[in-house]
Amino acid sequence: MDANAKKTALRMIPYGLYVLTAKGKDDAVAAATVNWVTQASFAPPLVAVGVKTDSHAHALIKESKAFALNVLGKGQQGMAFTFFKAAARDGQTVSGEPFRWGSTGAPILERTPAFVECRLVDSIERGDHSVFVAEVVDAGLAKDVEGRADDATLWLKDLGPNMFYGG
Amino acid sequence: MDANAKKTALRMIPYGLYVLTAKGKDDAVAAATVNWVTQASFAPPLVAVGVKTDSHAHALIKESKAFALNVLGKGQQGMAFTFFKAAARDGQTVSGEPFRWGSTGAPILERTPAFVECRLVDSIERGDHSVFVAEVVDAGLAKDVEGRADDATLWLKDLGPNMFYGG
Repeated sequence: MDANAKKTALRMIPYGLYVLTAKGKDDAVAAATVNWVTQASFAPPLVAVGVKTDSHAHALIKESKAFALNVLGKGQQGMAFTFFKAAARDGQTVSGEPFRWGSTGAPILERTPAFVECRLVDSIERGDHSVFVAEVVDAGLAKDVEGRADDATLWLKDLGPNMFYGG
Repeated sequence: MDANAKKTALRMIPYGLYVLTAKGKDDAVAAATVNWVTQASFAPPLVAVGVKTDSHAHALIKESKAFALNVLGKGQQGMAFTFFKAAARDGQTVSGEPFRWGSTGAPILERTPAFVECRLVDSIERGDHSVFVAEVVDAGLAKDVEGRADDATLWLKDLGPNMFYGG
């Protein structure tokens, strides 16, 4: 296999950006910017997300069997970069971002345009990231979306010409 | 759960477009435009794809344990629509598109800018689509890609202002 062709072909997959959040024991909070997300079924509504095996989010999803995907909006590059770093909770904020507890217990960020809350259904753990497949059990929008919904989302490409996950 | 919020939040996930191909017994060929695709690991290189359970592609992936994702390029809207319909093989073409057999046996379309060939690793079959997680074992590019690789890809949004998977 041509390593360059593999790298380029995989980088041709476009992505949006999301802050994945989960809650652990003693109300510990994990929050991390992720991009490997796809819907995976309509009925039931499932999503699949790739999560780094050695991350705090991975541990708390395994523990709580729930997570939220907070959809980043156009212009929220700063928040994307904030949650590339280790997150720290301080009361009802995480790395400076206010949140509330969702119906599954997962933190819902207050300043992102949309979220889905998910309950873990199953996982495939065969690489440096695990695939978590989860059912969407709650969702919310900060306001109505004008035009195509995916145009309101912060895209990986909006971070800059040379920004790809994994370098 | 607010059904409209769920629908809109899920439509905020941006997607590229791919022709998923697989080979069955007697060299039967399935080919279908899909968009629910994400990378899922770097080492080994894994992808996850959501495939409709009652589709020919689903049956042939289960049978052959392999498939290819042919990445559609900017301007290839016509090919995307062609493979929304049932595919028919005629010699070394499928629905009019020339192909060759890849190293896994999966058909590789000759006119798309890139492909990855994948061997099935595991699946989660819990909805109207199954999640197939597969290892990338071969890849190719028709030519070098200038600029961001994902800009060279045909995106779901390029099909029109109101085109979303599942209507």
